[in-house]
Amino acid sequence: MLKVGVIGCGYWGPNLIRNFYKQPDVELAVVADVDASRLGFVHDNYPTVATVTDGMEIIGDPAIDAVVIATPVAAHFSLALKALQAGKHVFVEKPLATSVVECDRLIEEAAARGLVLYTDHVFVHTGAVRKIKQLIDEGAIGDPYYYDSARINLGLFQRDVNVIWDLAVHDLSILDYIMPQRPKAVSATLHQHVPGAQPNMAAITLFYETSFVAHITVNWMSPVKVRRTLIGGSRQMIVYDDIEPSQKVMVYEKGVDLFNPGSGDEDIRISYRAGDVWGPKLEGREALDRSAAHFIDCIRTGAQPITDGHSGREVVRMMEGAMVSARMDGQRIELDRVGSGVGRTGIRRSA
Amino acid sequence: MLKVGVIGCGYWGPNLIRNFYKQPDVELAVVADVDASRLGFVHDNYPTVATVTDGMEIIGDPAIDAVVIATPVAAHFSLALKALQAGKHVFVEKPLATSVVECDRLIEEAAARGLVLYTDHVFVHTGAVRKIKQLIDEGAIGDPYYYDSARINLGLFQRDVNVIWDLAVHDLSILDYIMPQRPKAVSATLHQHVPGAQPNMAAITLFYETSFVAHITVNWMSPVKVRRTLIGGSRQMIVYDDIEPSQKVMVYEKGVDLFNPGSGDEDIRISYRAGDVWGPKLEGREALDRSAAHFIDCIRTGAQPITDGHSGREVVRMMEGAMVSARMDGQRIELDRVGSGVGRTGIRRSA
Amino acid sequence: MLKVGVIGCGYWGPNLIRNFYKQPDVELAVVADVDASRLGFVHDNYPTVATVTDGMEIIGDPAIDAVVIATPVAAHFSLALKALQAGKHVFVEKPLATSVVECDRLIEEAAARGLVLYTDHVFVHTGAVRKIKQLIDEGAIGDPYYYDSARINLGLFQRDVNVIWDLAVHDLSILDYIMPQRPKAVSATLHQHVPGAQPNMAAITLFYETSFVAHITVNWMSPVKVRRTLIGGSRQMIVYDDIEPSQKVMVYEKGVDLFNPGSGDEDIRISYRAGDVWGPKLEGREALDRSAAHFIDCIRTGAQPITDGHSGREVVRMMEGAMVSARMDGQRIELDRVGSGVGRTGIRRSA
Amino acid sequence: MLKVGVIGCGYWGPNLIRNFYKQPDVELAVVADVDASRLGFVHDNYPTVATVTDGMEIIGDPAIDAVVIATPVAAHFSLALKALQAGKHVFVEKPLATSVVECDRLIEEAAARGLVLYTDHVFVHTGAVRKIKQLIDEGAIGDPYYYDSARINLGLFQRDVNVIWDLAVHDLSILDYIMPQRPKAVSATLHQHVPGAQPNMAAITLFYETSFVAHITVNWMSPVKVRRTLIGGSRQMIVYDDIEPSQKVMVYEKGVDLFNPGSGDEDIRISYRAGDVWGPKLEGREALDRSAAHFIDCIRTGAQPITDGHSGREVVRMMEGAMVSARMDGQRIELDRVGSGVGRTGIRRSA
Repeated sequence: MLKVGVIGCGYWGPNLIRNFYKQPDVELAVVADVDASRLGFVHDNYPTVATVTDGMEIIGDPAIDAVVIATPVAAHFSLALKALQAGKHVFVEKPLATSVVECDRLIEEAAARGLVLYTDHVFVHTGAVRKIKQLIDEGAIGDPYYYDSARINLGLFQRDVNVIWDLAVHDLSILDYIMPQRPKAVSATLHQHVPGAQPNMAAITLFYETSFVAHITVNWMSPVKVRRTLIGGSRQMIVYDDIEPSQKVMVYEKGVDLFNPGSGDEDIRISYRAGDVWGPKLEGREALDRSAAHFIDCIRTGAQPITDGHSGREVVRMMEGAMVSARMDGQRIELDRVGSGVGRTGIRRSA
Repeated sequence: MLKVGVIGCGYWGPNLIRNFYKQPDVELAVVADVDASRLGFVHDNYPTVATVTDGMEIIGDPAIDAVVIATPVAAHFSLALKALQAGKHVFVEKPLATSVVECDRLIEEAAARGLVLYTDHVFVHTGAVRKIKQLIDEGAIGDPYYYDSARINLGLFQRDVNVIWDLAVHDLSILDYIMPQRPKAVSATLHQHVPGAQPNMAAITLFYETSFVAHITVNWMSPVKVRRTLIGGSRQMIVYDDIEPSQKVMVYEKGVDLFNPGSGDEDIRISYRAGDVWGPKLEGREALDRSAAHFIDCIRTGAQPITDGHSGREVVRMMEGAMVSARMDGQRIELDRVGSGVGRTGIRRSA
Repeated sequence: MLKVGVIGCGYWGPNLIRNFYKQPDVELAVVADVDASRLGFVHDNYPTVATVTDGMEIIGDPAIDAVVIATPVAAHFSLALKALQAGKHVFVEKPLATSVVECDRLIEEAAARGLVLYTDHVFVHTGAVRKIKQLIDEGAIGDPYYYDSARINLGLFQRDVNVIWDLAVHDLSILDYIMPQRPKAVSATLHQHVPGAQPNMAAITLFYETSFVAHITVNWMSPVKVRRTLIGGSRQMIVYDDIEPSQKVMVYEKGVDLFNPGSGDEDIRISYRAGDVWGPKLEGREALDRSAAHFIDCIRTGAQPITDGHSGREVVRMMEGAMVSARMDGQRIELDRVGSGVGRTGIRRSA
Repeated sequence: MLKVGVIGCGYWGPNLIRNFYKQPDVELAVVADVDASRLGFVHDNYPTVATVTDGMEIIGDPAIDAVVIATPVAAHFSLALKALQAGKHVFVEKPLATSVVECDRLIEEAAARGLVLYTDHVFVHTGAVRKIKQLIDEGAIGDPYYYDSARINLGLFQRDVNVIWDLAVHDLSILDYIMPQRPKAVSATLHQHVPGAQPNMAAITLFYETSFVAHITVNWMSPVKVRRTLIGGSRQMIVYDDIEPSQKVMVYEKGVDLFNPGSGDEDIRISYRAGDVWGPKLEGREALDRSAAHFIDCIRTGAQPITDGHSGREVVRMMEGAMVSARMDGQRIELDRVGSGVGRTGIRRSA
């Protein structure tokens, strides 16, 4: 029986508690939150689970095998580091930390101690994203051309992080999972419309070695909710609409063929292909259940998580690079230069 | 009776012919196209209209009062200039020319001769865009926050211009019409997925003096057609969906209010407003009919067109700046520096 | 402190328990279900609430003031009657009973004892339906022309009742609430596609004294979920789409005007009006919370519930009439003839 | 070279003219319309085509091989009969005539003379309906369960026929084409909301020998346009949305399976299947072009049209039965009893 403790019972904590509670051969032993009023939820719904207001009690408890961290982002690093140093496996809500330097320190600590460091990139465990990865891996879309995503809605303004760290993080983690290559550079813009609040609108372009490109727009100030990702390829194209209740992934047999029978550009002929449309059945299992189970399984078997510390670091690196670019209104930033120092990554730390 | 000649009878020419043909007290006298096979359309449908294969015949005809230019973009400048020099009023399909320098030359010539130089930014004459301008002018949306537009579909790849000059031009002309201020700078990326074909995907961000920002994505390689523009403001927000058959403009009483009862950022409280939604009735008149009528009216009354040479120049300036930025993968380009020399604007000229 | 007991903890029971639990100055004292395994849910989530397997224990408990009945439909009547005879106020899940005769008996018993008999027509308490009633009452749509509703999806096949009693009941209860007049007659068809299962598809037409007509289609075997109701009137028309997450009610300034300047039908001229579209903001309160509160309020104040026994009887009368018509493949049945005897209403009683 | 004349150049006539004009080895020789102002359209667009105001001139012209009739419905029969008697092949706009008796007379005359009698059920020639027929024929949907169609919008009120003859005729012709069996009986209701205008709303249920059922709602007074047909089967289900611009036909691997391991109804277990969704590519050819070509081909080869007189008669029989049922507010009418006499079919004849 593996014993797990959860630190943080805010917006997302209850979902983590519910899913770890039901993992077989796992005991969710204790939940911590600095706000004692949040712990009533645990008392009422999970009377067998202990509660504390200081997360360090969990980290210091020798009976605990693994710690789940669901606090505000600024606290991820210090809690995760202490938990690793105390010999615990660690599951951290996305994003893993606030900078590449922090991520590197966590990766190093986990490796040195042989512990699992897990980033909860939860979208990676949805049936939709898993199917998309499968389609790309099988070559169904051909050469990938682009990933173009809009993730916009009204609110919820975060207090500690801007819209890139809140919303774009999902697209970046999906990209890191589905694409065999990683980006070389980034261009981003970031905009604040409500004085005193976090920047609420951003556009990010990621450049790769090939002509593949990723473009992401995020916005907390949209009158309508949109969660639509287009993935273009040379053979087929995918529309992933996460709001659609029944068919989130549709595959289009569409594309362009180019003929150049002559010698010059003038002779180029383009023809358009449009065939069937297909909506594959997706696994219905809750993503967070699968994510929790994967973390537990990696602890037991020693397997490397698909969303390990390196994956968490890569996503943070893209965001850190995007923040640098945004401060220069879109200037291209080479990602291999990101992470050598402590960046100003836009995370607001409490006093 | 005003006599009009049309040069160019390709994709868009028939629409121009149809609409100029029906203007009251206007005689559509002659149509030119280098491809004689295109002129059969004129013979069959407008037997009273003469046809020629050389547009210079129209420009050289003293009986013609006004010339409508609907050729490939690269020919706009020289034909428009010659027509102005021959004393004709000129109506040019968007974009006005391939560079700011060209636009300046046309504006100068028209002004010196007291002739109307008209850019056919046709979306400006739609009921939807006119209503949006009215809502902004009346203060219905409050302070404008952003314009965010997606204009994507499969094809039609243009041979002579890339996707910015083909699709983004619409958004830029709408912006120039509806916004009281003009942008200061631009960041853009441009991507080519089909070797030998024109670049097919772009993202453009326009920076303004205020926190208002415009973001535009265009793509010829999307499996689905999207024409959706969001316009955010402090009081209300607009969704303009040009594909929606019945209600293209919807106005949302949505927004965010910020309270800061205390002294620090920690005390900020955000509340969300969501009230009624409203879809105003739009004028149904065909945009091109209104555009043609406006051109004719300006000739008759001496009024300045709402889409005059300066408006055409401004749109070209944004695109020329976007091209410069795109060649540097998104670097911010100050728009007041654009236009001092002949840029490489991505327009392909035939051999 | 009013003491309430709930009989039945199946599909809908947990929602009733949650909402009665939170009513102010109400004690949800006890829940009954014949299936003891269902009671674990109560233990886990509401440890202060007692549980029993025999609903008669609740009815026989003198400390209980009101009984909520959420059992299979066939048991509604006998439980509700016994509860009334034991002096309890009664809240019955829709439909109130299986026949008009049963409804009359319950109404009579409640009236004789001065008790509240409440039918939980829960849609009546939604923000959408309340707004629609307000619009009709205010004359916003003019003379009502029709109510046309499609309520279809895949499953959930009920074991004890057919699709009319499961899905059409919602439309009939909405109609009874929003329309000032009640129907005179009904024509219905009912179809069974899965041998051994309940009939899964039906169409119902209700005739009124005026030219107003209601038409309802319901289906458990549709590949897509649709919950769309059109309400036409002489001045405006309403589309109520209960699946739409954000704007469930849209009001269209659309209609037809008729001119007859001459004397005969030949001279009739029809013109079409199409103006603005408007989506009023709707109350967000959960319908079942409002319904539970209304029941409690009626007990305290002696007010007549808007969904009282008569309303419950009217809905059952329409369904009983529809069943008679359906057995004759659509023959018109006068509703004032329904209810004089025990009908074969298609409710399956357990052995 | 086959010579064709068209009688009637109203709403639909121009489409017929355009499509017959382009058929190879066919000469569209002459168009007739009693309203001479309609003939200007022909002069302007088809200067080689002669025009007359009296359709009898076409019927009496020995050089004409085939006559296309696109007049108001009430005139179909007499014109078609005269054209057949004059030895012409006849193409009649839907519906073929106003009663079964009329249809029988036309069928008899055509058979006696060996002429083609063609009913223009144009939807039968769309890529969508052809694909649906193919799917049913191949057994892709399994046993057909139902056809459920909504065909509603605002206007266009017809002057001579009610909404059944204007809109439901499309569904009835599609049913006659795609289903291997023909209906036994009909129940219908018909409603008039605008005094002096034709009845504008109807619901029709068609009963078959099997449990298959067809249900159709039509309405000229809907605020929104809907053209959605659901076709349920034991294996798969089809959604045919004729408004959808890109994917009109979607096939759902959805259904219900029933297990009855025990002996009684109590033991029935229902399970739900939901697999992939698939949108087959549809032929893009214009339906009316295909229809015109099919008529011409049948004249040349002697083949029986798929929409011959019998098909036209069957659709009229369903509508005539529906009218009888509607006058009795939905009473079931056996279709084999329809057509023995001249019915009151709701067609308004001019004075």
